[in-house]
Parts: sequence; structure tokens; C-alpha cells
Amino acid sequence: MCRWLAYSGSPVLLEELLYKPKHSLIDQSLHSTMGAETTNGDGFGIGWYGVGDVPGTFHSIEPAWNDRNLRELSSHLSSGLVLAHIRASSGSPVQQTNCHPFRYGKWLWMHNGVIASFPLVKRELMLAIDPELYPSIEGSTDSEAFFHLALTMGLEDDPPGAVERAVGYIEHVGRSAGVEHPIQMTVATTDGESLWAFRYSSEGKSRTLFYSTRVDTLREQHPEVAILQQVSDESRLVVSEPLGDLKGAWNEVPESHFGVVRAGQDELRPFTPRPPG
Amino acid sequence: MCRWLAYSGSPVLLEELLYKPKHSLIDQSLHSTMGAETTNGDGFGIGWYGVGDVPGTFHSIEPAWNDRNLRELSSHLSSGLVLAHIRASSGSPVQQTNCHPFRYGKWLWMHNGVIASFPLVKRELMLAIDPELYPSIEGSTDSEAFFHLALTMGLEDDPPGAVERAVGYIEHVGRSAGVEHPIQMTVATTDGESLWAFRYSSEGKSRTLFYSTRVDTLREQHPEVAILQQVSDESRLVVSEPLGDLKGAWNEVPESHFGVVRAGQDELRPFTPRPPG
Amino acid sequence: MCRWLAYSGSPVLLEELLYKPKHSLIDQSLHSTMGAETTNGDGFGIGWYGVGDVPGTFHSIEPAWNDRNLRELSSHLSSGLVLAHIRASSGSPVQQTNCHPFRYGKWLWMHNGVIASFPLVKRELMLAIDPELYPSIEGSTDSEAFFHLALTMGLEDDPPGAVERAVGYIEHVGRSAGVEHPIQMTVATTDGESLWAFRYSSEGKSRTLFYSTRVDTLREQHPEVAILQQVSDESRLVVSEPLGDLKGAWNEVPESHFGVVRAGQDELRPFTPRPPG
Amino acid sequence: MCRWLAYSGSPVLLEELLYKPKHSLIDQSLHSTMGAETTNGDGFGIGWYGVGDVPGTFHSIEPAWNDRNLRELSSHLSSGLVLAHIRASSGSPVQQTNCHPFRYGKWLWMHNGVIASFPLVKRELMLAIDPELYPSIEGSTDSEAFFHLALTMGLEDDPPGAVERAVGYIEHVGRSAGVEHPIQMTVATTDGESLWAFRYSSEGKSRTLFYSTRVDTLREQHPEVAILQQVSDESRLVVSEPLGDLKGAWNEVPESHFGVVRAGQDELRPFTPRPPG
Repeated sequence: MCRWLAYSGSPVLLEELLYKPKHSLIDQSLHSTMGAETTNGDGFGIGWYGVGDVPGTFHSIEPAWNDRNLRELSSHLSSGLVLAHIRASSGSPVQQTNCHPFRYGKWLWMHNGVIASFPLVKRELMLAIDPELYPSIEGSTDSEAFFHLALTMGLEDDPPGAVERAVGYIEHVGRSAGVEHPIQMTVATTDGESLWAFRYSSEGKSRTLFYSTRVDTLREQHPEVAILQQVSDESRLVVSEPLGDLKGAWNEVPESHFGVVRAGQDELRPFTPRPPG
Repeated sequence: MCRWLAYSGSPVLLEELLYKPKHSLIDQSLHSTMGAETTNGDGFGIGWYGVGDVPGTFHSIEPAWNDRNLRELSSHLSSGLVLAHIRASSGSPVQQTNCHPFRYGKWLWMHNGVIASFPLVKRELMLAIDPELYPSIEGSTDSEAFFHLALTMGLEDDPPGAVERAVGYIEHVGRSAGVEHPIQMTVATTDGESLWAFRYSSEGKSRTLFYSTRVDTLREQHPEVAILQQVSDESRLVVSEPLGDLKGAWNEVPESHFGVVRAGQDELRPFTPRPPG
Repeated sequence: MCRWLAYSGSPVLLEELLYKPKHSLIDQSLHSTMGAETTNGDGFGIGWYGVGDVPGTFHSIEPAWNDRNLRELSSHLSSGLVLAHIRASSGSPVQQTNCHPFRYGKWLWMHNGVIASFPLVKRELMLAIDPELYPSIEGSTDSEAFFHLALTMGLEDDPPGAVERAVGYIEHVGRSAGVEHPIQMTVATTDGESLWAFRYSSEGKSRTLFYSTRVDTLREQHPEVAILQQVSDESRLVVSEPLGDLKGAWNEVPESHFGVVRAGQDELRPFTPRPPG
Repeated sequence: MCRWLAYSGSPVLLEELLYKPKHSLIDQSLHSTMGAETTNGDGFGIGWYGVGDVPGTFHSIEPAWNDRNLRELSSHLSSGLVLAHIRASSGSPVQQTNCHPFRYGKWLWMHNGVIASFPLVKRELMLAIDPELYPSIEGSTDSEAFFHLALTMGLEDDPPGAVERAVGYIEHVGRSAGVEHPIQMTVATTDGESLWAFRYSSEGKSRTLFYSTRVDTLREQHPEVAILQQVSDESRLVVSEPLGDLKGAWNEVPESHFGVVRAGQDELRPFTPRPPG
């Protein structure tokens, strides 16, 4: 439905992430090969950390491939933690408030996939959102509702647990409404320090998700790739579709797993939705 | 906050309503004299009846004064029942789904004013909306929520009663939350045959609302005005601000009143919010 | 580079032309099968005749497939002469003034293809445009310059001759500048009564162009197709790519030919560029 | 017609320039007090120097006051040399390619005012532009043509002389075409190191232009203003309309003068158009 990219590592110009790779995210906006849709032309968004704790965001309803402002910004903004998302709408309107990543305080969130039969279950999901958080919902997507459910269920304290509870709740509500496979998802979320990336679907056939090999390993294998000389060992990309075809660079996140990218050791762990009490 | 115009009568080109009057609605988008804001540049919308029962709508996030598509359409579309609205946002995002008029089936609705402290009361108002209607809400404005409350409370069967109940409910929820003056409004709504226009505010100082004098009377007084020769006796404009300065043409809707424009005799009656049982 | 459709015949709702066919133009905006590009998401435009001599136009920089206003207008506007165009930019900016069809007085013009190396030859082509016409150029495309060259060379009096002279001139200027194949084109133009459609390229491998079979013939072969019962015998579509797969419905315009659709007998004739004196 | 701001000095966040002043440029987009128009809602643009020699630009067709991306970027981008412009169109289309500042290589240019009767003289002015520069014109404004004339006449080597020659040429062409007052202008241009600001009009009644007092002087007079403690002595603002009402902060550029802001001593000198040989 959509394509996304998350980067954590040495500060780099956004164009290094968005435009320069051979099969870049911008290229994927016109020619995705692994997505549910070939074209992801229903708006896009980026989020990045820089000045202060609160990340900046840039959302546009234009296709990413022809957006001149994105091209300009990408050659002038650098950051060590970036989320980028290109959208293929599954029905909700193309408007900036429906563009990922969504932000709450210092948190960012983006989603590829769908809450199935969302119009059928939307009201019940919205009711479960903390009334304090409710007014900060600005758009009409399933993805933003999902984010606010996760916030309600403790995202700021225990991200993996909160997402497991939110997904458990979405599956509970969906199944009660007769939806066979209530959720399909890859999700990235971050507080500006750690990055969590989830791969899951109720039917067990989840959208693809890949993470990049450690930079020190890649650097040895590919001494000719300039960018690998510049970024730190701990720099990491998580993507819905590999960028370029560098051998050994991409590893699939297994079904029903999530990864944590942070200073120190990264982790990959199983993901298990937790149904409501 | 906004400016609007509603027309019922002989079919006319939209440009006759939107551009040709001396102090036209498009002119008001740059230079409103009676509005809470001088500039109404946060998008606009039109709705019109023509082919079939369901009205057409055109919504744009550009300022009306520089929108070329509106100029083009206005010189090619004609209709006997038209709603037009220019927006000055009181905070909610400028996006097409927040542009008036809103549509449900054959109904259109537009609003000038505000539900005060909307973020504070939004959740409770949304809960009162019929779950069947809930998924058809696409934007994030108080005005669209108000429309769906009125639909929930019987707009299709008894428009004045439904609006009185919706306003009574909004005032009840607002006051329970400590809001002194919960609503400020002029509203126009139509099913494609009759047109209802309401003027009310909790504090008793409502936004202005005017209706045009009967065409047969105006025609006698102003034989030189060409358009008056073309339109039927029953043609009527209801506007938040007079168009032009034709003497005797405009009559103020009194505080806490509503009017009905329809084939046969038009009516002007008191409006009294009905608090929930 | 682009896809287009021209219709001349009984007045029909635009949605009959743009949305209802199986492989409609809107569908082609996401999934073109015969175009140089799969995706035609860099804006679109329509032009139609209705009120007065001057056609209406609607231009948008959004992809056609997600433009709600186009959907709305298409279900409320009907016309007996319609041009529609979806764009895949070959470099010039995505802005309304670069969207086809272009208009001059009662004339419309749209183009699929390219003037090769346009930046190299633009200045010389612009100089050849009648100084009276020069100020009416609003955008920056090769296609609009081509239109104004054709107007300069007599489009209003002798459309085929003017296009032959314009193409001859473009080829002359291009070749003088060392461009091997100066032009690639299918073009439709109309004065509101007749419709001319051209297929040509300097290299003799032109973009595809098809015209529909006479309605009376199709009606006999396909009595089950409802729309064929509604439209007049003389109704005709010219398209860059067939809509749907109705057997016997589509005929290719031969290389270096043009067709005229008008009341009475349509014609198909050879097209021969005329170099400058 | 428009409002603009140019800043040269210590790197600051753009929001310090665009949003925080009391009568900020963004505020002026809705409520200009000294402009020819109250509302400057026909798009805007910013240009800034940071990474590399080539400045970044951000252009939007939305009104500046409701553009969320501008708000976001302003709180994350900092620069020591910034141009910002809000537009009130005098007729040419609202599109990104008509938004100032315009860029050529490392140069930026913005203009408030008008080349009078531009459609009448445009062709002749365009002919005078260096054929090498001609293809880099993307929009349709008088301001961009003016920039390319100045480039043609030596802007990169002798900015004041080039602007004097360009204005002299514009006046010559205008007067030959019967235009009484061919040009009205304030202009800012920069190569990333120095900043030139011009005030001139053929009729001798030029749009307003102000420069800020030296920071060391202001700092003594207003020790309570925090931002003055942060920026260097040589920081300088040039604006079409004062921001805020800090006493002693703003000085008018005299009629027919230009200023140069650069490291070392700033200068203010007479401006005299030079007619063509």
C-alpha cells in the first residue's frame, strides 16, 4: 500500500537516503517492485530529528517523484534519524494530515498496511483512545488511529508491549465485527533515540521488511562504496523494499518479529499481539 | 470566520452569483467588511444541484480569489440551487475534507461560526453521532461534526427541529465542560428542494445573515438591473454579507431565527435550541 | 509521455468518457499499457464546449486517479465535444499552466510527445510566434509553444496546413541545431465544431493513435452495449490508447496521417510537414 | 504587490526571522499595513545558504499564513543569509515557478513591484536575454525576466551596474512602447556573501524599503531584547515593511538608492538607471 524507509546513524544529507540509492524511495514512488501497488503517488512525508527534541516533519500531497521542494530540502537537511514514507491510498483522502510519519511530542510513527474494514471498526477503536490524546488526531487514516491506540497503551514507556497490546485490541475488535484478518502492518516508530520496526499481519503473510547489514561488515565487502566510508559502524537502514542491489546488504525481518536499532547492540525479537484482558 | 451564500431560484450561471455582484463572495474572500476576519483565504467550496438527486461539490484549498478552476466552472455550470462558502480557518487544517459545503446523500450543509473549545468537547459530540453515520465523517471540523449531529437528530425528517436539538445538545455538552458560549452559527442546509438558513449564538450576538427581497418587488424598484428581469419571482439569496449595495435588496434575519426558502411561500420563524431530555 | 482522449458526438456526461470504460483514461493515469510511461501522474486537464463559444477548462496538478473534483465534475458536466489529457512530464514543471488542453479563443489543443531538445530550440521557436500571440503563452511546455506556432501559421483558417507548416518549421529549427528527430507527436485540436487529430514523428515511429468505429456499425455488432444505443451515429472517440476491449471498436490512425471528425463525412488524410520557404 | 525580507548575519533559525517578530513577514501575509495590497496570499518562497554554494529554496502556492511545512522548516533550518518573499500576484498565475526568490547558480533574486504593461514589452525584454540564459527561465513573471536581464548585463561581476543597466533597458523599452512609468521596484539579490538591496521607480514614488540599525547600537538601547544578545554586530535585516516597533531599529532606504550588506563596512549609494548606449 505504501513504502517507507527509516535511518538511524551518522548524520547524513537526506538526499543520500532518498535520491542517491539506485532503487531509491523516490524511484519506488513511481516503480515499486515489491509493493502491493506499483505507484505510490498519493502524497508523502518525512520526519527528522535535529534542532530540539521535537522532530521536524514535511508532508505533501504531491507525488514524491515530482516534488521540487522535497528535492531542495533533501540537499540541505541532514540528520542522524530520519523516517520517510510514500503513500498509495487505500481510500482515505490525499491530504497532508493523512501523510505519514505522524508525530506526537518527540515520537514519530509510520505504517505500511491496513486495518481491514476500517470504516466498520473505526468508531470502536477511536473510543478506546485516551480522551486526552483524542483531540490530537488530525487526519482520517487507520494508521494515525493505530498510533494513538499505541500511545494510549503505553508506547512512551514500553514500545514493543504497547504495539502488541494495540494490535491485540485491533484484532479483537476486528474479529468481533466479523473481519477475518484484521491487520496487516509494517510499522516504524521512534522517540528520537531508539528506532523500533515491526512486521506482522493477522494472516501471517506480512508486507516485506528489511534491515541493512552492519556497516563495518559491508565496508569490508564493498570498499568501493563511498558512503560506507562516511557513516558510523552503527548506522542502519530499515526499509519496506531494498534500496539498490548491493550484495549482502539486506536482511529480511522474519514474520511476526520486530527490531530495535539503538546505540549499542541492536536486537531482533518475536512479536506477539496481546488480546485485551 | 467564514462567508457564505445560498441561492434558490431560476437556474443561473454560477458566475452570476459568485463573480458579477459588486461586493461578490469572491471579492469578500479578499475584502470582507462584516466578517470576523477580513481575509477568507483558507480554501472554499461550492455545491450545486443538477444531474440526478445528488448535488455536485467542488472543494479547493486555494484562496477563492486566485482559483482559476472556480472561475472556469462558474462560467459553465448553471443551477437553480447553489451553496458557496469561503473559509477562514479557526485552526483546523486547510484541506478539501474541511471545506464546506458538506454532503450526505442529497443533503448539503455549510456553517459560519464555531463550536467553542471544540477540542475539549469533540469526543463527546462524536460519540453522540449515529454509528451508521460516523464513518462518513471525512474531515476534522466542528462544522462537519455539527452536520452529522443534526443528521443523527432527524435532519432529513424535520430540519428545524433537528438543528434545534443538535444545538441544544452542543450547548449542553459545552456548558458541562465549562464553556460559557458553546456555539456561534449561521447555517444553511438543503435537500435540493427547500433551503433552510439559521442564525443563532449562545451569547445572543450572532454573525450577520441576510436574505434578499422578493424579486418582483426589486424588479419594480430597479427596472434597470438586467439580472432581475431574468430570474423568477421566487428566486432568493441568503448571504452572510450583502452582495452589492442595491437599495432595498437586503433584509437581516433576526437573532435566533431561521428562514425556509421553497416553492410557494417562504417563512421566517424563531429558533430555540432544545436541550437533551 | 502522456495519454489523451477526444470525443465528438451526442452530449454525454464526462464520466461516461473518463471513468466508465474498462480501460478508462483515469485508469490509464495509473496503469497505461501502451504509453512511453506506465504512470501519467503529473497533472491533467479537460476542456469541453457548452455555454457560449469559449470552451471551459479544468486543470489540476494532482494525479487524475485521486482527484475528487474531477470525479465530481465528471458526474455533473455533459458535453458533445470534450478533450481530456493526463500528463507524464518530460521535465517541465508540474503546474496548471503546463496542463493540456491549451486554449486560445474558441480553440483547444493537446499534445502527446515531445519537441526534442526543447531547451536548445525554444528561443528560436518562440521568436517565430506572432508578437500578438506571444503574451498569451502562460506555461513553459513545448506543447504550448507548438500550439502558438500553429496559430501563427494559420490554424484558425487551415488547421492541417498550419500544423504541417508548424511541424516543418520545428523540424527545420531542430535539424539546424543538430537534433536528429526533432518532433514526436499526436495532437488533437478543435474549434468547437470540427476535431482534427494528427499522428506524426520525425523518425517515423509515432506514438499510437486510434479512432473509434462508426457507432451504427458498432451498435449492430454489440446490441448489448447500452451507451451505443444512446449516442448518435456520428459520435466518435480519438484516443492515444484504446478504452476497453470492445471487438472491432478501434482503428489505428496510420503513420503520418491526420483525421477530421465533423458533421457529415469524417476523413483520414496523409500528413506532410512543410519546411519553411 | 509583495512583501519581502532579507537577512545577513549570524546563523539563526528561520522562525526567528519569519514568525517571532511582532509584525512578522508571516503576519504581513494576512495584514500588511504598508503594502499596495493588504493580503499577500498568492504563494511565497524562501531561499537560504547552508550546505554547499548553491542556496536551497522552498516555494509554495499556499498562503504563507496557513502553510504548515513552512512552519516546520522554519523551526529546523538555520542560516546566516536568508531571503523570504510573500506574493500578491498582479496577474500572473500562482505557481511555484512564479514564486520568489529566483535562483541562478549561487545567486538569489527577489522583487517587489512591477514592470508596467509587461505583456506589451515582454517579448522585447526576453529577446535581450542572453540565449544561454534563456532556457533557465521557468515561470512567467516580470520579476524573473528582470533577473535574467540583470544576469545578462553582468550581475555576477558588477551587481549595481548590472541592475542599473537592466533598469535602464526596461525603461527604454517601456517608454518606446508608450508606458509612462515603466518600472516600480525594490529588489534584493545575493551571491551568498554580499547582499544588495535596491529601491527605485520610474515615477520617483518607490515602494518602501528599510534596513535595520547596527546590532551593537540596538543592543545598547534595548538590553532587554534577547535576540540582540545572540546575533553578531554585523547582522542586518532589509525589509519592505518594518518588523515590530522597536524604537530606533529601522531606517528607510532613500529613493533611488541601494545598499550593500557584507562583511566589513556596509554601504548606501545612489542608484541611477543606465539607458542602453
